[in-house]
Amino acid sequence: MTNQNELDGFYEDLAAAQLIPLWTAIGDLMPSTPRSHAHAHLWSWSELCNAAERAGALVPVGRGGERRAIALANPGLGGSPFATPTLWAAIQYLNAGEHAPVHRHSQHAFRFVIEGEGVATVVNGDAVPMRRGDFLPQAGGNWHSHVNNSDRPMSWIDGLDIPFQRQIDSTFFQPGAPSDNGGDDIVVPKEHSRSERLWGRAGVRPLSHVCLDASNPLLVYRWEVTDAALAEQLELELEGVPATVSPGHAAIRFTNPVTGGDALPTIRAEFHRLRPGASTTEGREVGSSVFQVFEGRAEVAVGEQRWTVERGDVFVVPSWQSLTVVSAAGVDLFRFSDSPIMERLGLARAPLWDVH
Amino acid sequence: MTNQNELDGFYEDLAAAQLIPLWTAIGDLMPSTPRSHAHAHLWSWSELCNAAERAGALVPVGRGGERRAIALANPGLGGSPFATPTLWAAIQYLNAGEHAPVHRHSQHAFRFVIEGEGVATVVNGDAVPMRRGDFLPQAGGNWHSHVNNSDRPMSWIDGLDIPFQRQIDSTFFQPGAPSDNGGDDIVVPKEHSRSERLWGRAGVRPLSHVCLDASNPLLVYRWEVTDAALAEQLELELEGVPATVSPGHAAIRFTNPVTGGDALPTIRAEFHRLRPGASTTEGREVGSSVFQVFEGRAEVAVGEQRWTVERGDVFVVPSWQSLTVVSAAGVDLFRFSDSPIMERLGLARAPLWDVH
Amino acid sequence: MTNQNELDGFYEDLAAAQLIPLWTAIGDLMPSTPRSHAHAHLWSWSELCNAAERAGALVPVGRGGERRAIALANPGLGGSPFATPTLWAAIQYLNAGEHAPVHRHSQHAFRFVIEGEGVATVVNGDAVPMRRGDFLPQAGGNWHSHVNNSDRPMSWIDGLDIPFQRQIDSTFFQPGAPSDNGGDDIVVPKEHSRSERLWGRAGVRPLSHVCLDASNPLLVYRWEVTDAALAEQLELELEGVPATVSPGHAAIRFTNPVTGGDALPTIRAEFHRLRPGASTTEGREVGSSVFQVFEGRAEVAVGEQRWTVERGDVFVVPSWQSLTVVSAAGVDLFRFSDSPIMERLGLARAPLWDVH
Amino acid sequence: MTNQNELDGFYEDLAAAQLIPLWTAIGDLMPSTPRSHAHAHLWSWSELCNAAERAGALVPVGRGGERRAIALANPGLGGSPFATPTLWAAIQYLNAGEHAPVHRHSQHAFRFVIEGEGVATVVNGDAVPMRRGDFLPQAGGNWHSHVNNSDRPMSWIDGLDIPFQRQIDSTFFQPGAPSDNGGDDIVVPKEHSRSERLWGRAGVRPLSHVCLDASNPLLVYRWEVTDAALAEQLELELEGVPATVSPGHAAIRFTNPVTGGDALPTIRAEFHRLRPGASTTEGREVGSSVFQVFEGRAEVAVGEQRWTVERGDVFVVPSWQSLTVVSAAGVDLFRFSDSPIMERLGLARAPLWDVH
Repeated sequence: MTNQNELDGFYEDLAAAQLIPLWTAIGDLMPSTPRSHAHAHLWSWSELCNAAERAGALVPVGRGGERRAIALANPGLGGSPFATPTLWAAIQYLNAGEHAPVHRHSQHAFRFVIEGEGVATVVNGDAVPMRRGDFLPQAGGNWHSHVNNSDRPMSWIDGLDIPFQRQIDSTFFQPGAPSDNGGDDIVVPKEHSRSERLWGRAGVRPLSHVCLDASNPLLVYRWEVTDAALAEQLELELEGVPATVSPGHAAIRFTNPVTGGDALPTIRAEFHRLRPGASTTEGREVGSSVFQVFEGRAEVAVGEQRWTVERGDVFVVPSWQSLTVVSAAGVDLFRFSDSPIMERLGLARAPLWDVH
Repeated sequence: MTNQNELDGFYEDLAAAQLIPLWTAIGDLMPSTPRSHAHAHLWSWSELCNAAERAGALVPVGRGGERRAIALANPGLGGSPFATPTLWAAIQYLNAGEHAPVHRHSQHAFRFVIEGEGVATVVNGDAVPMRRGDFLPQAGGNWHSHVNNSDRPMSWIDGLDIPFQRQIDSTFFQPGAPSDNGGDDIVVPKEHSRSERLWGRAGVRPLSHVCLDASNPLLVYRWEVTDAALAEQLELELEGVPATVSPGHAAIRFTNPVTGGDALPTIRAEFHRLRPGASTTEGREVGSSVFQVFEGRAEVAVGEQRWTVERGDVFVVPSWQSLTVVSAAGVDLFRFSDSPIMERLGLARAPLWDVH
Repeated sequence: MTNQNELDGFYEDLAAAQLIPLWTAIGDLMPSTPRSHAHAHLWSWSELCNAAERAGALVPVGRGGERRAIALANPGLGGSPFATPTLWAAIQYLNAGEHAPVHRHSQHAFRFVIEGEGVATVVNGDAVPMRRGDFLPQAGGNWHSHVNNSDRPMSWIDGLDIPFQRQIDSTFFQPGAPSDNGGDDIVVPKEHSRSERLWGRAGVRPLSHVCLDASNPLLVYRWEVTDAALAEQLELELEGVPATVSPGHAAIRFTNPVTGGDALPTIRAEFHRLRPGASTTEGREVGSSVFQVFEGRAEVAVGEQRWTVERGDVFVVPSWQSLTVVSAAGVDLFRFSDSPIMERLGLARAPLWDVH
Repeated sequence: MTNQNELDGFYEDLAAAQLIPLWTAIGDLMPSTPRSHAHAHLWSWSELCNAAERAGALVPVGRGGERRAIALANPGLGGSPFATPTLWAAIQYLNAGEHAPVHRHSQHAFRFVIEGEGVATVVNGDAVPMRRGDFLPQAGGNWHSHVNNSDRPMSWIDGLDIPFQRQIDSTFFQPGAPSDNGGDDIVVPKEHSRSERLWGRAGVRPLSHVCLDASNPLLVYRWEVTDAALAEQLELELEGVPATVSPGHAAIRFTNPVTGGDALPTIRAEFHRLRPGASTTEGREVGSSVFQVFEGRAEVAVGEQRWTVERGDVFVVPSWQSLTVVSAAGVDLFRFSDSPIMERLGLARAPLWDVH
């Protein structure tokens, strides 16, 4: 029988040699199913807006911090500014007349607009006006800045894979000069960016850009399109045509027109609509998600948590925790997740919502 | 030294044993560059229309022949009804009130409409109204029929990979009953098919149909979309933005929204527009193409051939023959080719038109 | 009711305009299942050897014909030197001291040796000695020649995709100078080529050649390896381990170590062994095959044909014709087919032999 | 100008709301190039062996801890038992007559043997004897156990992607019963596992196993094969044939015969040999590596670190840190890395060693 003193001495010697036994750690390292350190958590829109406005009054935008963005920090992740172990979610705020400076990085990013307008995201010199409901993907490696030429402040949600790339040490970052991104006097069109004009039509791709790399050339997915697609699914359902995920639950996924796959290499983005009185099926998947309520109100169950959510509220679904959404009034939900990482590496299991 | 008699006897014995020496055949079998048996050839639209109308008066549509389609037979292909060694092109004609019966086959197909309306192509029970400028792909294996519920005849161009699949012996064909394709009383919508309503918006795919097979779910690419995309490219060019293939030459490729690749597994389809006074660069590629003039007029050079072409005219570009199009008045060209076969098998070389 | 004269006049006018109605041709063009023009056919080894030897005596090798190869001409293919609509099979013969000159071409090729040795195939300057049972793939685009430095003639089987590439007009050919392929004094190693030394070990690839194109770098698959793999499968079967295709039927497929896929982009190659008393299941597939008996004797049924085959005999299985092999004495069969074409284009159905 | 009190109050309110500003964290989150928390670090073989032997004396193997494995804990990773942010490396030890129990998990794993024999790894009922120099990959999801039927203890190195899968919350684990893996009386063959007998020959795959999933079916890569491949490269180099990575530096990568790609979906494994007097070029790459000296001695520079390493020593190269190895005496190095993660997600840059 082992002497406890002997064992203690052994463990001390191991620690001194930078060695750790598996048998004392296996429960946390190799749980029977994913057991995330992240919590199911909810941030209210009013809190996010309030924080953004105060930052707008107190903190300059520009070199050093690069962006006036405030990250949603999951309470389970030890004080890191990470919404989930792989995903970053932040609210960004730009005052009238402000510019967020040009830079580029290996992280994949997107913007999603809950309300307001007046800002343009400029990508490689192409200015894209941002409006409520728009989804703007931003694949890693492209120069970009944000320009508020209007007379009002604006805020939006940034989503990135910062936690993931930080963890695997694949992050590159480079500040730029205005000339890297269309110059100081960038012209912001009223309606459509060049990207939309070249890539914004279904099923037709410009022959002039056949040999693009994997970057998504479509820089914005307009709300009008998303809204119409969701409305159409519900209408088809009423006509008896299979079009929804489950009764009363319409959903679309944003795709890269070059590949038909996800809009970003590491991030999936979707829009969901529940008809009044409808609910989702209960589901769970490998990998984490962040949801934002775009409009309406719903009851949400994530694992053991229960919330009532409404416009602008953001909540997190950790890996393998079950999710159900029920909406008496009807609800529109924006969602993003790390599913492409799981799928590309063969680690995915069944999708969150099976089609019924 | 070999005795000629001995050699003759040897060749006779070989023939009797179903054997043929390489050294007597190598020039045709293994030319230094592709030397197609197909000819560069032109069919005029008036001739095609005239043939279709006479067929409409003389020949019934229906079981037996299945379709009232008349194939363009390349003069170099020994009397076969093949436009090129891999591609079938035909004009199909349907009288007021006629139905072309339900069937399905392994061949990939499409319809392209030069003029007229009133017919719907019905695919797996989804009726798609056809109108001028529309491109309707039809991947192999789907039930389909054509329904003319109008009071006027209509004709259009069919493109298929019949010659290719006939050659490699991969052809399956199955006649159907009306119940296989929406029944006898199929409802034809005024505007949009279900397919368009689910798949016709850029960058958004229905979550209800994530696990589709490789079949293209988008059953029609509308002229309004194609036209706008081409116009936009020329406008961007005027603004100094790289958008065209070469000066004054706009072009789009029809793509499958599920994969971002070609609209059909064996057939590429594109639309080209030359601004008045513009011309294409000279190019050639491995594989054959069929062009149809949609609108306008142009001077075309294919290998040693020179033609003036106008609305509705169809011409063939055999493999590796050079092509140049010059248009004083401006021209819109529809094109289809066997490029996906070449690319999937690693046999392609440079594309027909390099981007400048 | 249509006047027959009117119809005749119509058809004449169509013919004059290079137009052919579908309804008169559809039966051959679009059969309900593949109905190949090719026949099931058998060539005896003695006939092939006899033809090769006579050619060796009567016909020089070299520029002009390039190779002293005699093609197996399927009786259903109208006098073309094609074994099947897609595949070329020929016996090649080289006298003591002869060289078959350097060339390269887009066609994919292989050599398979039934008996003899003394010749080396030289690929991009790497000399590969050929011996009984060896399979030597030769992807398109590589310089190659054949060198007989021995004092005896040698013959072997060439397989290529000439008919397929001729049909789709993708053929390029280029004669070379000796300096393109190792020079006139090429050193032929006794045992192993450079290719085998770098690529001939399972599961290990040289880091020095990570960025190769799709060409197969393994230039020969030695009989010792194939034989051992087949023997092992039958032994495992006796031990009760699932290892054979069906009872008594062992089989391996030759694969490209870079991709794990077929040894050539358009040609599949396999080796099959039936234990004495065993038989294959009955099967058929989309696409055509050529078999050669390597050793032993068997009863073969292809569609309606029945043959007894033995060492060196070659037979053809057209697309979708059923095949069964029964062997009282045991038999080793080499097989090649056009399956990669079918699979890459999505035209394949079930494989010839399902695993039981 | 902002009042510091006001700012402090703002930051406190943010913290209370689980919000963190980007501008205070961006330097660590988005460095200009990867700046890993992991350190370049070295563990000596004697220390590892000593720890393993003491564990063998003090700690039982079996349910609860599952394995008597001691992890190498990178001093930069805050006390986690992780060699790098993505990779686990441990020494495992099994006494004479011991069994490590059956389990399976989503983590991908391998074993690598520096010295000793007598243990078999059993995978889905197939017992694989382990010997010096052998590399045994173990794709996620397969039942496995370790059996020491000999009269001596044995230890080896385990490599897994535990840190990566723990971070992204994709971990599943399931204990098994003996019957899940061949039973208590598993027969260990003297030489070859079934896996080797079916899959251990280059370029030939069993037709009976064509439809396998992505799991690597080759369960062991034997030292004799690796050694011969490395020796051959150095010999070819002497003959003037391009075969090495750089002068005197031979290297192979272990590949999955089904795909030609890496032996495991998330882990790359390689073997390197430096001829006496040779050195590697200096290189760095995105992603981390673990090296173990198999034989010989070398001077290693990783970033600012300099070590002399010899048989059994293990060292870590964090992401983007430069590496050079110089060896007066000659050295054999085993290496594993997370490169497949980077490559599958499009995050890789140039490889560690460019070929010269």
